[in-house]
Order: sequence, then structure tokens, then C-alpha cells
Amino acid sequence: MVWNTNLRWRLPVTCLLLEVALVVLFCIFVRYDPDADAHWMDEKLAGNISSDLENEFYYRYPSFQDVHVMIFVGFGFLMTFLQRYGYSGVGFNFLLAAFGIQWALLLQGWLHCYREGYILIGVENLINADFCVGSVCVAFGALLGKVSPIQLLIMTLFQVTLFSGNEFILLSLLEVKDAGGSMTIHTFGAYFGLTVSWILYRPNLHHSKQPQSPVYHSDLFAMIGTLFLWIYWPSFNSAVSSHGDAQHRAAINTYCSLAASVLTSVALSSALHKKGKLDMVHIQNATLAGGVAVGTAAEMMLMPYGSLIVGFSSGIISTLGFVYLKPFLESQLRIQDTCGIHNLHGIPGIIGGITGAVTAAFANSAVYGEEGLIQAFGLRSKLDSSMQAKLQAAGLFISLAMALVGGIIVGLILKLPFWGQAPDQSCFDDAIYWEVPENERTALRPEHTTLRPPEP
Amino acid sequence: MVWNTNLRWRLPVTCLLLEVALVVLFCIFVRYDPDADAHWMDEKLAGNISSDLENEFYYRYPSFQDVHVMIFVGFGFLMTFLQRYGYSGVGFNFLLAAFGIQWALLLQGWLHCYREGYILIGVENLINADFCVGSVCVAFGALLGKVSPIQLLIMTLFQVTLFSGNEFILLSLLEVKDAGGSMTIHTFGAYFGLTVSWILYRPNLHHSKQPQSPVYHSDLFAMIGTLFLWIYWPSFNSAVSSHGDAQHRAAINTYCSLAASVLTSVALSSALHKKGKLDMVHIQNATLAGGVAVGTAAEMMLMPYGSLIVGFSSGIISTLGFVYLKPFLESQLRIQDTCGIHNLHGIPGIIGGITGAVTAAFANSAVYGEEGLIQAFGLRSKLDSSMQAKLQAAGLFISLAMALVGGIIVGLILKLPFWGQAPDQSCFDDAIYWEVPENERTALRPEHTTLRPPEP
Amino acid sequence: MVWNTNLRWRLPVTCLLLEVALVVLFCIFVRYDPDADAHWMDEKLAGNISSDLENEFYYRYPSFQDVHVMIFVGFGFLMTFLQRYGYSGVGFNFLLAAFGIQWALLLQGWLHCYREGYILIGVENLINADFCVGSVCVAFGALLGKVSPIQLLIMTLFQVTLFSGNEFILLSLLEVKDAGGSMTIHTFGAYFGLTVSWILYRPNLHHSKQPQSPVYHSDLFAMIGTLFLWIYWPSFNSAVSSHGDAQHRAAINTYCSLAASVLTSVALSSALHKKGKLDMVHIQNATLAGGVAVGTAAEMMLMPYGSLIVGFSSGIISTLGFVYLKPFLESQLRIQDTCGIHNLHGIPGIIGGITGAVTAAFANSAVYGEEGLIQAFGLRSKLDSSMQAKLQAAGLFISLAMALVGGIIVGLILKLPFWGQAPDQSCFDDAIYWEVPENERTALRPEHTTLRPPEP
Repeated sequence: MVWNTNLRWRLPVTCLLLEVALVVLFCIFVRYDPDADAHWMDEKLAGNISSDLENEFYYRYPSFQDVHVMIFVGFGFLMTFLQRYGYSGVGFNFLLAAFGIQWALLLQGWLHCYREGYILIGVENLINADFCVGSVCVAFGALLGKVSPIQLLIMTLFQVTLFSGNEFILLSLLEVKDAGGSMTIHTFGAYFGLTVSWILYRPNLHHSKQPQSPVYHSDLFAMIGTLFLWIYWPSFNSAVSSHGDAQHRAAINTYCSLAASVLTSVALSSALHKKGKLDMVHIQNATLAGGVAVGTAAEMMLMPYGSLIVGFSSGIISTLGFVYLKPFLESQLRIQDTCGIHNLHGIPGIIGGITGAVTAAFANSAVYGEEGLIQAFGLRSKLDSSMQAKLQAAGLFISLAMALVGGIIVGLILKLPFWGQAPDQSCFDDAIYWEVPENERTALRPEHTTLRPPEP
Repeated sequence: MVWNTNLRWRLPVTCLLLEVALVVLFCIFVRYDPDADAHWMDEKLAGNISSDLENEFYYRYPSFQDVHVMIFVGFGFLMTFLQRYGYSGVGFNFLLAAFGIQWALLLQGWLHCYREGYILIGVENLINADFCVGSVCVAFGALLGKVSPIQLLIMTLFQVTLFSGNEFILLSLLEVKDAGGSMTIHTFGAYFGLTVSWILYRPNLHHSKQPQSPVYHSDLFAMIGTLFLWIYWPSFNSAVSSHGDAQHRAAINTYCSLAASVLTSVALSSALHKKGKLDMVHIQNATLAGGVAVGTAAEMMLMPYGSLIVGFSSGIISTLGFVYLKPFLESQLRIQDTCGIHNLHGIPGIIGGITGAVTAAFANSAVYGEEGLIQAFGLRSKLDSSMQAKLQAAGLFISLAMALVGGIIVGLILKLPFWGQAPDQSCFDDAIYWEVPENERTALRPEHTTLRPPEP
Repeated sequence: MVWNTNLRWRLPVTCLLLEVALVVLFCIFVRYDPDADAHWMDEKLAGNISSDLENEFYYRYPSFQDVHVMIFVGFGFLMTFLQRYGYSGVGFNFLLAAFGIQWALLLQGWLHCYREGYILIGVENLINADFCVGSVCVAFGALLGKVSPIQLLIMTLFQVTLFSGNEFILLSLLEVKDAGGSMTIHTFGAYFGLTVSWILYRPNLHHSKQPQSPVYHSDLFAMIGTLFLWIYWPSFNSAVSSHGDAQHRAAINTYCSLAASVLTSVALSSALHKKGKLDMVHIQNATLAGGVAVGTAAEMMLMPYGSLIVGFSSGIISTLGFVYLKPFLESQLRIQDTCGIHNLHGIPGIIGGITGAVTAAFANSAVYGEEGLIQAFGLRSKLDSSMQAKLQAAGLFISLAMALVGGIIVGLILKLPFWGQAPDQSCFDDAIYWEVPENERTALRPEHTTLRPPEP
């Protein structure tokens, strides 16, 4: 098979066509939410609003900016750990996320904010668009180094669509609670990405292990991503929760869970190395599992110790996954998972979904108060908690099913031979899609495997 | 000409004199705004204030911190892309911005917040001081690698003064709207910097292209700057807008515009490379053009699709500028523009000014509501929209004129031979002004052009 | 002495035991603050609360996230400046801080928020836990490169305990004001760390200076830490101040002080180098001294010029400390201070304590207003300002005494030979505790002192 990786016409045309379509659709459909519309002033002076502070902006904007950092710096730099794939890691993530948020504003808008022919957007829509794109960033992690930017744009187009459909089924039809997106973002994103990677399996990749390993500095760049994800995760899980106590509680629970998963990730990383040494891969990834796993239940009355238990378990399971499950998936199931998203988002996402269902099952008015129970679980105060728990569990299975079926279809589309994908020997190498500084172009050639050679 | 680049007495004396002057002037003039003064408690208990939340602090502080990150991390790291000029890029930006914000507090204070002999400062002043310094950071981009820290301090002294005068003419005399500073910050800053660079033209710099190129890791450091600028730009454009809907709308418009310019920058970057490869320079810079170009109109009823169109166009024009205009400016007009600020801030700034004028021209009470129109365009509800549009356009021309005239004067001052500027062969090299780690001092010598040599 | 640095069982067991203990204690003691409890809804509907905005969350959450960035990214990356100790710098800081915040939630909770058998936590507790851990990060700076992760966990266990006791004495018993923690965090943390380092003195370390020096890129990584600390310090000093004017004022004062210390740090750095060159160590550290030194007085009516004077002085003193005091401490007092915390946190912390006492001594109702004075200095309106000043000074001495006595005890515990500490020749080398990329393992061997060899 002859690979044509010159994207000169295909990538520009793809980008421009998509963006023109977005402009047209925005022109037809998208307007401002009342909180962002200049008519707000008339409302205010008519006495319908007592203070500018009631504007949704002030409740959500700081969290929005934190989430925005996570999507672009967090996920972007987390994917710079490969020695010669940093431009692509951070750059392609930038590209797909910038496209994805626009497309998500439309799709989520049609499904959730469509009023009299218009989608009315405000700060909450911006957060939800970032969330949606978060699931694409997760899936990208499995494919890192093996796909072209055109493939990523096509995948984003479909994955955002599937995400929005799945989210609509869960949140609107089943009225499932999933504030931090353990199911809708992480479980869906991870199993979608793994399925696509399974379809795109490249049997000969393992012959060249070297470009898949990090160098010293690339691991430090990746830590920038890890830390911003870790720090801002309380904002992620609380950003779209109800005002007041729910938002407050979601931040506290996430803070606790993440702290616990750092300690157990370190413990397992050391215990599983024959000389007790720590592995940067675990520190960069498994420490975040607590944030994923507490996502669904973060706004519930999980209690701080409940959060610690969630973080404790997910740190352990995630590290075990990196050591034992990742090689198994590759060798036995033919699933190549570059960043190990199965261990950071897949399993912890499922834990998160189950935790949410269990926590909902134990919800009662003694714990939540009469009104608090109504507020926490929407309009379903008439349903008992066990019904909510069952719906939560159903939401988890639906997310998994959507991910698998969607992943197969999208994977087959991406397997078509004209998307400019790289041949095996050019995987994990920026030089195929980027103009790389001249004095470093030879760095990855097979005859120069040592980046910093010892003196003769 | 003999160059003396030993700054041992000149730099310390400059810094200390400036800081002593600032201390004296602050002592005479600067006090706290009522919202930051302990007498606030008396007001509150007298019933003049109903809640601490009415304190301006809570409306603006999160945006302020985001802007602060943009000035120091955003601009700072954006300028670390050169292979041996990272210390200076981030360090000199730190120095000039730290000086500039203090000087701007005074100048903007005298012009805008002078009450009974005192400048009363609050969080909005901090934001405006950061904005003012933003224009100096822009200008620094054109001069990067060619000026001494003393020259930068002198330039900051004058540019902050000129900025404040220009801003006063536009915002206070003409009552122009310019929330995100497309005109006052970007257009002014860019053309000021380019004019200074034109005066300081060094004809022999092109003989040594190598130090002006990046290395692999330096491009990743620069991406830290790019992404924090990109992420926090919605805060930049909304930070000083009116409370409520205007602030909310400015954030949404900027979010949309920036997303669009990522796609068109990528498209053009690939289309203009003979093998369709992406260029990090475009990804680092042109993706931000949407934020610059939407600055003036961000708080207006530009509509989300309007923002997309602005981002769409400016991403294209900015990338074209990097490919065609930058070499032309250097070879034909003798303007050396290290970071390409003409393409990131100059042209997009002008686009922003024009967009603002056009958007103002179409303002009417159907779009804004009766009160909204008054609120959006200040006290000039009596004037028709076309008058406002003309004033907006006038503001743009005044900014350009101030930049050109000011730039020539300041450029001539900076050309004086005693500011410790580096000779041509030491440009773009940290070692001239910094203690550089010993084992790397030889890195830039002409005989070692390859930083990471292949094995023999 | 035989060193066993294989942590395979010791580190995992330590981490897991600590985390299990935390889970049990959280289960017994920790619940949600009313503002984070679902019963909030019942309160609200009963009319006890008029708006969700009154939730403490909205007053403090943005500042909390900024502080969180400072602890994990700020301190973490500040400690990546060594050429081969970046993994440990950022990774061990991550580990100790994640453990420390959980332990601090308990200890500070018992001392400050214990109600009817439960610790009730909200966003303010999260900030205070981060603050407490900040003092451990400070102490870690003195020990960087010379201690094992187990030693760091043990130290955190004890230091958090001592911190909480000292904080309780100062804030609750003496009713000292210390918003930004000049005394409780910086002075205590620095002298505690220096005392521990004195006990753990390693006389032969100076024979291998090379691994203690930075390389070009590691200094840029450290600047990420510096800048995020610098930018977010206004949030640090204002995060737990009273709502409204105090929080507002603390941010302004810190902004001013930090800006001034950048100029004087640069001035002194250049003046103290024989060729007038700048030293990255000073830019990375002394520029922050203004934030430390204004900590105690930041929320007081220090006036903007007062803040400038504080920043001015502390930048000078801190840089002088790096040049003259650090070598003196090592050679004469046998105190090895890897990051120079004595100059960044120790002396500026003392300056901060004194500044606070002096500012309190001049407090009166003309400056603060009647109610403002009560608000600013708690319940002690009946006491005159000089009494408050004396208590402030007493607080400083108590912090120093606690640090010295505590540091000796903890230092002796850490000197026990079974914590997996590294031998002298493996200090400052990640390879002892981390799996380091293969092609770079040899980098620090004595025969390859040049990381990037010139071509033959």
C-alpha cells in the first residue's frame, strides 16, 4: 500500500469546509442567551432582575476558564510525553478541540437549548461544549501517533455527534445525574477511542519501540498537563452543578478523591517495580483517576470519606491497569492504547458510573433534606432512590454500547485509505506532518537511536 | 563602533531610580478605591451597601487573574521560541511588565481616577494597568533579541505614557468603545513596536539565521504561552466590560472567534507549505488573531456567527502575513519583526477596529433594547449609530498616528549608543546578558551549529 | 554505612498506611459545612438564605483554585531547576502536598471547625489546607535532592501537625492577624526546613557541584513555577481575608509589592555580577520575596506605597541573601539550602512579620473607620493598637521557636537510617528513585559531565 501523507490540499479543504459550514449554521441558528443579550438591561430596569450578580456568568465563569485550561493545556500537554511527537500532541489536540467546541455548541444547542428556532447560548453552553470535546481528547489519547489530523477532524465530527446523542438520552430522557461526566465523557470517550484503535490496529508498530518512549524533558512537559488537569478537576466536576451547595460539594469531593489517588498511585507504582522505582507514566496518569471516578457522584452527598475511598481504589486499579492490562490489551486483544486511556478514563469511568448509582441508591431525605432531595435528583422525588440507581446503571450501559457501536462505524470510516495516515515507520514522529527545526530532523532516524550520545 | 554590553552599573541604577520614583509618586498620589478601603465597613453598616458581594472585586477579580497570566506567562513564554533566547524572552518580559504596571497605575490613574488630589485604585485599575503593559509586550515582540533590558525599560517608560494618552483620547474624549483593546492595545502596540524596530534596523542580522530559528523544545515552551493566551482571551476581552450581559457576551464572542481562527490558521499553514506540512510559527501565533480582531466588538451585539466570521478571516490573513508579508517587510521596508507582531497584532488589530466601527454602525434599539443601547454606547444615546461608527474609525486612525509618531521618537532615543545594546553577532543569544549554565555556553558558537550532533 | 535505596516495600506501605488512616479518620470525623450540605436547600426555602450567591463558595472559590495552582504547579516546577532532578522536584512535591492537604484538613479541622463531634469542611478549609502544605513545600526546598520520598512523607506528617499547633496559638489564642502567612507559612516553613537540613548535613556534597547546577531547559521549566507563584500571589494573600474590602485590599497590596521586588531583584542581580549579567536563580526566587514579605500586612491599610517599599526592600535583601548568605550558611553553619529558601521565605517572612506588627501599631479609626477597625482586628477593638502590635511580634517569635525546636526533633527522626535516603554521590539524581528513559541514564555519570558534547 502506498501512503500519501502530503496533506497540502486535503487538510486545508477539510478545515475550510467545516468552518464555512459552522459559520452558516451559526448564522441560521445561534443567538445569545438572555443573560448575554443586551435586552438584559431592559429586563433589569423593568425590575425583573434585581442585580447584575444574578447573571449566570458570575456563577460559572471561573469554573469555565478552569475547564478551558484543562481541555487545551491539560490534555494538550499530557500528550507531549513522546520524544518526537510533542508538536502533534499539543497541536492536533488544539485543532480538534477548537473544531469540536463549535460543533458541540450546535448539537448540544439543538438538543437542549432550542427555543423558537434559535439556539440561545450562554456560559453554561461553553462549558458543556468543552466537556463534549473532552471526550474526544480522551479518545485521541488511544490514537496518539497513529492518525493524521484529517482523521482527527473526521473523528471529532462523528464523536461529538454521538456524544450529544448519548448525553441527551442520559440526561434528558433517563434524567440520569452525571455532573462530572464519568459516564458521558470518560467511559464513552475511552471505549469509543479504544474501539477505533482496535479497528485501526497496526500489527508492526511494536518493532520500533524507541519513538514510543519519552525523553527526560518530554516527561516534564507532560507533567504540566497532568498538574493542570489535577488542580482544576474540582472545577470540572462542579462546573455545571446546581448553584450553591451542589457546586460547593462537588468541588470538595473531587479535591479529596484526587488527593487519595496520588498516594495509592505512588504506592502501586513503586510496589510493581522490581527495584521500587517510580514510573512517570503512572504519576502522569493514575493520579488523575480519582477525578474521573468521582465525576458522577461528586455533587451527591458522597461524604468526604466516600470520596477518599473512591480515589483510593481508582488510583490502585489505574496503576495496575497500566502495568498488567495495557500490555494484555495490545498483545491479546490487538488494541493499541498509546496514552493508556483505558486505565485513566475507561475503568475509572465505569467505577464512577457505579459509584453514582450506589450513592443514588442510598439517597434519602435524612441525608439531603426534603428540598435538597428534590433539588439533587431533579423532578423525580416521586420515584424512590432505587429507581434512580437503576437509571444510573442503565446510563452506564448505554454509554458503553454507544461507544462500541459508534467506535466500530467511525473506525471503519477512518480506515479508508485517503485520509493521509502515516506509514508504520513514521508513526510517533512529528516530521511527517510538521516542519521540524532543521538541526534536529535526523534525530529519529534508526541509525541515531541515542538522542544525546556519550562522548567518544 | 565599540559596544559595551556590561550593564553592571547602568541596569541597576536604571531599575533603582525608576522604582524610587515610583515609591515617591505612589506615596504622594495613590490611595485605595472605596471598595478596597476599610471605611467600606462603615458604609456597609450605615446601610449604604447591602452586601459584600456588591464589591467590584467579585465582578472582576477572576478575570483580572486570567489577564495577569496572559501578560506574564502568555506573552513571556510565547517569546521563548528562539533556541538560545528563552531566559531573555521570559525574563525581560517579566521585568518590563513589572515596571510598566506600576507606571501605568499612575498615568491611567491621573487621567481616569483622580479625585481630590488622589488616585484611588481598585481591581479595575489593576486590569487596566495589565492591559497597558500588554501593548508593551506586543512591541517587545518586534524587538526580541535585538535590544538590551535598559532599552526595554526606557521604551516601557515612554510607551506606557503614550498609551495612556492615546487611551484617554479614545475612551474619554471621543467615547470610543474598545473593550478588548483592538485599537488601544494591539494596533497601537504593534505599529509602535514596528516603527521602533524600523528605526533600530540592523542590516547584517540576516547573515546569521541560525540563532533566530527555534529548536524542538523551545517551540514547546512557546506553546505554553500560546495556549494560555488563547484560553484566557475571553477574560481579556470581557474584563472591563459593563457588569452582566456585556461581560457575558464579550466572553462568548471571543470564545467563538478564537475557535474559528484555529481552523483557518491550520488550513492556510498547510496550504502554503509545498509538502502540506504545518509550521509551528503559525500555530503559535495566527491561532490568536481571532482574539485580537474581535477585541473592540466583543462586548457589542456582534452575534456568534459574526465572531466566527471575524475569527475565520483573521486566521487566514494572519497566516498569509507570516508567509508573505514578514519577509517583504524585512527585505523591502527594513522592518525586522522577530515574533511577527505585524501579523498577530497589527493587521488583526486594524480588522478589530474596523469590525467595531461597522458593528456600531448597525446598532439600534431593536437589537440592543432601549436601555441596552444606552448602556452599550455610554451617554451617546442621542447620537445616532453612524456617528459612533465614525468616532470608532477616528479612534483607529489616531491610534495608528500615535504609534508611528511615538515610535519614531522613542526609536531615536533608543538608538543612542549608551544603552548597552548587543552587537549583531550576539543578538538572539542569552549569554550576552545572562549567566548561562557552563556546559552549554559554547552551544551557539558558529563552529557548533548542530545542537545535538549525530554520532560519529 | 550501607545505603539501601530500594523503596519497593517501604514506600508503598508508608503511603497505604497513611491513606488508610486518613480514610478511617475522615469517616469518623469529617462532614460537609452547611454551605456544602444538601440541607442548604431547606434553609434557602425556609427563607434563612436569600440567594445562592451568599454561599461562601462564590467568595472564595476562584482564589482557592489560584492557590491550588501555586502549591502544585508553582512550588512543583520551581523545584525542577536542577538538571537531573526534575521528576523528583515536581513529583515528590505532588506526593507530599497530596498527603499533606488531607492531614491538614483533619488537624486544622479539629482545632478550628470542630462542632458536635464533627469537622465541617467547606472551601475555606481547602484553602487553609493548601496553605499549611505550602509551608511543607517551602521546607522541601531546603532538602531538595537529599531526601527520600519516605522521609518527605514523615516530615509532612510532623510538619503539618506542628504548623497546625503554631497556627492555632497565633490565630486563635493570640488573635494575631496573618492573612498571607508571612509568619505561619513562610517563616515557620523556612526555619523548620533549614533546621532539618542542618541536622541532615552531608559534608561531602560539595565535591560534586555539577548535578546541583541547572541546564538551559531546566531553568525555563523553573520559570513556569516562578511565574505562576508570582501571578497568583495576590490570591494567596487575599484568599482567607474578610469578605469585601479586606480581600480586595490584600490583592492590591500584593500586586504592588511583587512588582517592586522584580525591579530591585534585577538591579541587585546585575550589580553583584562582575560583568553585570543576570542570574536566573535571582529572577526565579528573589522576585517573589515581595509576596512573602507583604503577607501579614496585605489585608491591613498598608497603603500602596507601603507595599512598594516592602517589595523594594525584600527584593534587595533576598538577592543579597542568595549571593552572600547562602554560601556562608553552607560553609560556616553547615546548613545546605538547595533552593535558597532562607532568602526567599526565611528573611522575607521575618520582614513580613515585622511589617505586620508595625502596620498594626499605627492602626486607628481615622485610617480604618470605626467599624473597619473592629472588622480588621477582630474582637480586640478594646485593646489599643500597640497591644496588637506586641501580639504580632510575639507571634513571630513563637513561629521561629516552633520551627527550631520542631525542626531539631523531626530532623533527628529523619536521620534514622532506614528511610531509604540516597548516598552522597546519588543526590540530585532522579535515577535513584525513578525509572529514567534509557537513552539518558548515563547522562550524569562523572565521565560525561557535558550533557551536549561539542562535535569532535
